Amino acid sequence: MKFIENGSVTSPVGFKGAGICGSVKPSNTTKRDIALISSDVLCNTAAVFTKNLVKSSAITVTQNNIENGKAQAVIVNSGNANTCNADGIEKAERMCELAAEALGIDKNDVIVASTGVIGQPLPIEPFEKSVPELSKIMSENGGTDVAEAIMTTDTVKKESAVSVEIGGKTVTIGAVAKGSGMIHINMGTMLSFVTTDAAVSSEILKAALVEAVEQSYNMVSVDGDTSTNDTLAILANGLAGNEEITEKNNDYRIFTDALTELCKAMAKKLAGDGEGATKLLVCSVSGAKTVVDAKGVAKAVICSSLVKAAMFGSDANWGRVLCAIGYSGCDVDVTLVDVSFKSKSGTVDVCKNGAGIEFSEEIAKEVLSENEIVIEVNLNDGDSTAEAYGCDLTYDYVKINGDYRT
Amino acid sequence: MKFIENGSVTSPVGFKGAGICGSVKPSNTTKRDIALISSDVLCNTAAVFTKNLVKSSAITVTQNNIENGKAQAVIVNSGNANTCNADGIEKAERMCELAAEALGIDKNDVIVASTGVIGQPLPIEPFEKSVPELSKIMSENGGTDVAEAIMTTDTVKKESAVSVEIGGKTVTIGAVAKGSGMIHINMGTMLSFVTTDAAVSSEILKAALVEAVEQSYNMVSVDGDTSTNDTLAILANGLAGNEEITEKNNDYRIFTDALTELCKAMAKKLAGDGEGATKLLVCSVSGAKTVVDAKGVAKAVICSSLVKAAMFGSDANWGRVLCAIGYSGCDVDVTLVDVSFKSKSGTVDVCKNGAGIEFSEEIAKEVLSENEIVIEVNLNDGDSTAEAYGCDLTYDYVKINGDYRT
Repeated sequence: MKFIENGSVTSPVGFKGAGICGSVKPSNTTKRDIALISSDVLCNTAAVFTKNLVKSSAITVTQNNIENGKAQAVIVNSGNANTCNADGIEKAERMCELAAEALGIDKNDVIVASTGVIGQPLPIEPFEKSVPELSKIMSENGGTDVAEAIMTTDTVKKESAVSVEIGGKTVTIGAVAKGSGMIHINMGTMLSFVTTDAAVSSEILKAALVEAVEQSYNMVSVDGDTSTNDTLAILANGLAGNEEITEKNNDYRIFTDALTELCKAMAKKLAGDGEGATKLLVCSVSGAKTVVDAKGVAKAVICSSLVKAAMFGSDANWGRVLCAIGYSGCDVDVTLVDVSFKSKSGTVDVCKNGAGIEFSEEIAKEVLSENEIVIEVNLNDGDSTAEAYGCDLTYDYVKINGDYRT
Repeated sequence: MKFIENGSVTSPVGFKGAGICGSVKPSNTTKRDIALISSDVLCNTAAVFTKNLVKSSAITVTQNNIENGKAQAVIVNSGNANTCNADGIEKAERMCELAAEALGIDKNDVIVASTGVIGQPLPIEPFEKSVPELSKIMSENGGTDVAEAIMTTDTVKKESAVSVEIGGKTVTIGAVAKGSGMIHINMGTMLSFVTTDAAVSSEILKAALVEAVEQSYNMVSVDGDTSTNDTLAILANGLAGNEEITEKNNDYRIFTDALTELCKAMAKKLAGDGEGATKLLVCSVSGAKTVVDAKGVAKAVICSSLVKAAMFGSDANWGRVLCAIGYSGCDVDVTLVDVSFKSKSGTVDVCKNGAGIEFSEEIAKEVLSENEIVIEVNLNDGDSTAEAYGCDLTYDYVKINGDYRT
């Protein structure tokens, strides 16, 4: 398996994309904010969504449209979440209709997603004006414009693609995602669309997606809030020509491992670009009794506001890591726990058997001043491991969220 | 029941207190940081502690000392948590010994508590030097010095007292507490000591404490982290002369209601002075199917980083309130939910039946610019209610926690 240079959601064979500035938010007159992704042929599809009871009308419409496991296009906008609006369903359906008309496909084969502010009616005019234009500029190089169009407070585009050999054929998987606030670990966690030219049945696609998500998107937390719009959908058009994967055989393993690596790479991009973040935090847990314990500890550490703020200040305040482990609810013997901080500048051991050990504050500061920090936790009580992804808590997180709507 | 003007932990008959600067943290040469509270006679006692697996050695020693339901004094310090230290138990026991010697009581009748940084060995010299001095300056007016001595990042002293008639006798209950970070709702939540001259058996004291805590300290969240040192202890010396309360009779009801009101007042003080906070947030939930649902919704709203940041920015971003309700895990029909923001400037209705309604942004800004905001949520689906207490998320929270140790 290898990552493709400048890979995007349109890297797999037969996928096109485009993004355009439609001024969904009237004040936005420059940034792309409406995007289309389409496949030349009908795809098998699977998706996971937010578990929030309050959910976007786009999700309701998408769930209905992909019930048959088929889709051919995605229409998505930033600038408005189309959530908590009386006419939300109608608007989301209209978005599908407009995409279908422009692309000459069935409106029930369209996935729709929205992201942005909650509770303001979605203006439909920008779509009526922009979607026909969008369909004209769709291209195999358009993935990167899609990545821009779905950004909200994201500061960088999030896209990637991998290729892998399956049954003698080169299969490509591409992905695009947006973060960067209201992100939490128990859910679909954001908007992300994954495309592949692999031939995979809808049912098996769902299994592969769930497996990949568990180790990637579902291990990301930015702020503990769970969006109302989280959607992760995968479309597989089969144009790579591999024998369709319809069971959990060796091809499934290869495909799912590649998908998992791609999703992990995207998860790190999301975490590192969390709202206001200056640093990507990875909590790497080993020596846990079970995977559930390993995951629980990793998530508790990565979610702790106090750990996040300490990392912002490059402060080796390992007591807060221990504290988070202690309230994680996991089966942990705190007297066995070792903690180290690690970055490309080096490693500093700070806690052994649950108690502090002497370390150089100077070296610790240097290690923690990098923009990617690994918090290594060894529970010394078993063989299970897990990784969770987060970011530091900064002034800018507060700034961005203290005045989001205006 | 009435609140006593300038009431403190030494307001009840027979309690004395004192605080002194002992330089527990060598850099502190001015702020009081060691305190003693004592009763003229042995007290019945009860306490609740953090549920964090990582806990201060002070807690272990206190739990052992009060197993018999008796105590006569409290020794407490700020500046060092005495947590995750190899010699922590020894140090905590030594603190008890020093207090007992100075006060002429049994060392097993001393409650010990510490708050401050985790994982740095507690220096015992400050106690050896200061405790004898402290015992000489103990007084009935010393409660307020105790309040100062237990402060860490708190910006104001937290103390209060109430009096109530029980069986023809005036009973007084006093309290002192410290916040203000690492505070969360599932636990003892902070350091607080409550004194009373009421006569109450240890067993009934525990029942009253647990009942009061459920509606007060356990409904406070500042940052979602659960301290390793949370301790709430109550001492009842019986000097008010009421007939000892030994069962859940009418006297119990009067005492527990007064205790609950006192604890609620303290909980609001804690929340309003959360680290970096500029505003007290109260989420008042009505119309819930059950009390569990009401509490769950209130807590989810008050804990949401996005709601907290919006309140900091005086932004009526009610969508984030709905979002938090949606992921609370409670039994809620989101299409029935009404939300209003309320302060002494007025009330603004922002959401009806789960969807946005028109409101004046100008008036909303005015309402939200006050320093005490009530987020009113009516679930319109039952008769149960609850209140939770929190604060806004500010630049200063990040500042305080980005560089705590240095």
